[in-house]
Amino acid sequence: MTSKKLLVGLAGMAGSGKSIAVKTATQNGYDVIVMGDEVREEAKRRNLAPTPENLGKIMLELRRLEGDSVIARRCIPKIDKVNDQKIIIDGIRSLSEAEEFKTIFPRFSLIAVHSSPETRFKRINNRKRSDDPQDWHTFHERDLRELRIGLGNVIAMAEYIIVNEGTRGSVKAQARRILKKVEEKWMK
Amino acid sequence: MTSKKLLVGLAGMAGSGKSIAVKTATQNGYDVIVMGDEVREEAKRRNLAPTPENLGKIMLELRRLEGDSVIARRCIPKIDKVNDQKIIIDGIRSLSEAEEFKTIFPRFSLIAVHSSPETRFKRINNRKRSDDPQDWHTFHERDLRELRIGLGNVIAMAEYIIVNEGTRGSVKAQARRILKKVEEKWMK
Repeated sequence: MTSKKLLVGLAGMAGSGKSIAVKTATQNGYDVIVMGDEVREEAKRRNLAPTPENLGKIMLELRRLEGDSVIARRCIPKIDKVNDQKIIIDGIRSLSEAEEFKTIFPRFSLIAVHSSPETRFKRINNRKRSDDPQDWHTFHERDLRELRIGLGNVIAMAEYIIVNEGTRGSVKAQARRILKKVEEKWMK
Repeated sequence: MTSKKLLVGLAGMAGSGKSIAVKTATQNGYDVIVMGDEVREEAKRRNLAPTPENLGKIMLELRRLEGDSVIARRCIPKIDKVNDQKIIIDGIRSLSEAEEFKTIFPRFSLIAVHSSPETRFKRINNRKRSDDPQDWHTFHERDLRELRIGLGNVIAMAEYIIVNEGTRGSVKAQARRILKKVEEKWMK
């Protein structure tokens, strides 16, 4: 059965600034579903620490066993439970995931956030999250891993793209403008 | 041996508006090398008509026989012959090609042009080039073929991105601004 909910899929490489776009969406009445949470919950069920290595392995294993859109499929019951009509899905990584959502939620739009590798690396170095690589080689390896899953294809095929080379304010303004367009498209 | 020439690599899905960016570059003193010409020349050498099917087959065969960066490698002697110091390379399709150029031309920057699939399809339908697909299915298949080669990865990893959802003038303005930044980075 298809749903009338409005779904916005968000994709971007690590450090591109997805979180600013998510925040803008929540400030505009969107509920957030974080795709990575599915993997973290799977780690918990298996009594594994949520280290980047464990999460990476679990994700690849789930995809191997249950197909490329496994994480998207696991998010769907959560989305169904949400009361809000507008939902942003943080962390789409392959076109199969986008297709999976689109089948159940025809009112689906894909937004990508883009920054140059240099900008993303600097940003990650500044935020120093525990699971962020601090050297260029590890950072680049993670980029390539994400691209192998299909993240580059999602960015190339996005309906809207937010360019994040400037201020947080600029990202928020672009996100607001795009969300408005998405709502005009699907909720008119 | 490395070269002091400034190379700008340009990537974008079919119909994204790369040609406007190329035109802006030539108006700003850049010579143009079209990567697809290498494949067309190979077709000529083989006495094959330059149909989309033949060109697609030749490209895949060359990549299989000589590696993912074969087209880039074949462009290098042409670039060496150019007198201008600023060159734009039209039609980068994989990160291996970008790496190949970067090795010989350290002053290399990657620009991507992005439009939504819907916008690109409309644009292609309007321009009606003989080798452009006129139905959504053929168009989408070509997109997927380009993504399999690695074009999405190039877009995701570009240093600069031109968003082309508006007018030609907007693309030209973005291209001019970005080319200026590239020149400031490499020619200072």
